[in-house]
Amino acid sequence: MERIGEVVKRIKPVDKRLMERTQERLDSLTKPIESLGRLEEFAKRIAGITRKNNPSLEKKVIFTFAADHGVTEEKVSAYPAEVTGQMVYNFLSGGAGINVLARHVGARVVVVDMGVKEKLKVKSKKLKVKKIGYGTRNMAKGAAMTKKEALSSILAGIEIFEEEFKKNGIDIAGIGDMGIGNTTAASAILAAITKVRVKDVTGRGTGIDDLQLRNKIEVIKQALRINRPNSADPIDVLAKVGGYEIGGLAGVVLIAAANEVPVVIDGFISTASALIATQLAPLVRDYLFASHKSVEIGHNIALREIEQRPIFDLNLRLGEGTGAALAINIIEAGVKILNQMASFEEAEVSEKL
Amino acid sequence: MERIGEVVKRIKPVDKRLMERTQERLDSLTKPIESLGRLEEFAKRIAGITRKNNPSLEKKVIFTFAADHGVTEEKVSAYPAEVTGQMVYNFLSGGAGINVLARHVGARVVVVDMGVKEKLKVKSKKLKVKKIGYGTRNMAKGAAMTKKEALSSILAGIEIFEEEFKKNGIDIAGIGDMGIGNTTAASAILAAITKVRVKDVTGRGTGIDDLQLRNKIEVIKQALRINRPNSADPIDVLAKVGGYEIGGLAGVVLIAAANEVPVVIDGFISTASALIATQLAPLVRDYLFASHKSVEIGHNIALREIEQRPIFDLNLRLGEGTGAALAINIIEAGVKILNQMASFEEAEVSEKL
Repeated sequence: MERIGEVVKRIKPVDKRLMERTQERLDSLTKPIESLGRLEEFAKRIAGITRKNNPSLEKKVIFTFAADHGVTEEKVSAYPAEVTGQMVYNFLSGGAGINVLARHVGARVVVVDMGVKEKLKVKSKKLKVKKIGYGTRNMAKGAAMTKKEALSSILAGIEIFEEEFKKNGIDIAGIGDMGIGNTTAASAILAAITKVRVKDVTGRGTGIDDLQLRNKIEVIKQALRINRPNSADPIDVLAKVGGYEIGGLAGVVLIAAANEVPVVIDGFISTASALIATQLAPLVRDYLFASHKSVEIGHNIALREIEQRPIFDLNLRLGEGTGAALAINIIEAGVKILNQMASFEEAEVSEKL
Repeated sequence: MERIGEVVKRIKPVDKRLMERTQERLDSLTKPIESLGRLEEFAKRIAGITRKNNPSLEKKVIFTFAADHGVTEEKVSAYPAEVTGQMVYNFLSGGAGINVLARHVGARVVVVDMGVKEKLKVKSKKLKVKKIGYGTRNMAKGAAMTKKEALSSILAGIEIFEEEFKKNGIDIAGIGDMGIGNTTAASAILAAITKVRVKDVTGRGTGIDDLQLRNKIEVIKQALRINRPNSADPIDVLAKVGGYEIGGLAGVVLIAAANEVPVVIDGFISTASALIATQLAPLVRDYLFASHKSVEIGHNIALREIEQRPIFDLNLRLGEGTGAALAINIIEAGVKILNQMASFEEAEVSEKL
């Protein structure tokens, strides 16, 4: 906990003065005032986060964290649990959705085994192994993790980011997840922290039917009843109804903010991670960008809780960091507007009458 | 008119069978069914438009057409008319918003002088000159153009596209505009064709105040009263209350569809062009993508009229093709999903339970 506390303490408010100066510069460019809308907001926020007049988002990294969930015993998912591990192999061979979209936007993908239930047979350096366990325990029957495991998962995320940051540099980070059963964990976390009714934050995940959805809601209710997570203690919530990958991504959010690196969250699961992180360190909110509005019904509530407005809504619900990859590209467009557009003076264009 | 009629006749329905087969392929990829939402829709539509199993959107072109508007005499804009020509110079030197965003997405920008009010002093081959006149006439006092000029503007757009298509190839086209006063023309076109009240389709353009907005609405009402455009005759509407760049972009839409090339429309002005084109050839609707929902209040009505749902909403209102550039990038992401993702079989991932 001490190490996490140190990271939290390093997180400072963003530079509001530089954001104001950046808006002044944006207003001097050859376009009507604020006519590039949210692209200008992105440029301004990136300046405030990075403390740079002309920030660059060249080094883009998507952190895709995978782990299994004991709660899949309760038949909460449309897919078998072994898909988590199979998809990790797919990430490593470059055939998954996140690989395609990360290549499209020029981002690297860092794949981490945070606790897949089998031992993965991969020699590739591309896979980082930070196994906290071989899948969490079934939250419907007791705590998913011990408090120690929950803290370890956050620390593992911190370490993964730091390694990558020191070795290759990171200008902007996206966070994504893979874990059969993890919308159940995300819904449980959200219900535990916000006290919103379980049925209002529980959706169809990878595609379950009405009957399975009713079962999923009951399973989450049971998990909350049995475990009684303390809504004021994000570590307790994470331990009792969370997941290893969710804890790990919360760690990435914290350490990124501590290093003045903007973080782009993906869909429902990574928003649950960001929620854990904002509960630990409210200042991280200013370092976050919400990429998209997921199809998952709880996502809106989660986004409101962390005070984020999504950049787009394309009916995505894949996870892995796919929405984050696309959003990073749009945020970068805003930054390039700031860095590359000519001013009225430079271009000798007449100003407003 | 004969040449335009020939182009219209060449426009065929998109390939619905290939779209179905493409959805089947998308469903075999390693992701839950339809979990990439609209990205899958884009991939499918691009296949149907191009008649290719594995379409490529490598060759991206933004057509940015500039022209002046006589109606600026009525003080309908926040900027002086000479800004149109000044911005053309800015486009050619690479400092405008569209240059930055086109570079960001790997698109070429084709800048065309369709009728800027001065003779531009440019030797660069980068500027195509298709001047129909030195600015339209003031629509508040009579027709903006003759019928012949309106037809010539559409033909000029057709020629520009064909030159570029033959010389360099075009896999996807974006359309954008520059013309001080052209939101007035776009609102007038929309009111004339849809018969919606002028005040419901008239917005603040580059940023006029309440008083100026009331004046703009009165000017448009007067233009419609004096000219009585025939709502069933898009050429008549274009001639009486349109603009050279609007006619030119309508020509691009028609010839692109005739060549099985998808067209991405930008904001309010280019949607008015697409509206003219769909009135001339209803089949072009299936070749269109609406990039974004503009801040202009009439844009929603215009999009509904051409049956398009915007891809994003970032509060843009710059024009030039800026929204189209960003949208092309997102559409391309969808196409790459189709072309590059592994199937369940290839990746040996278990399917749904």
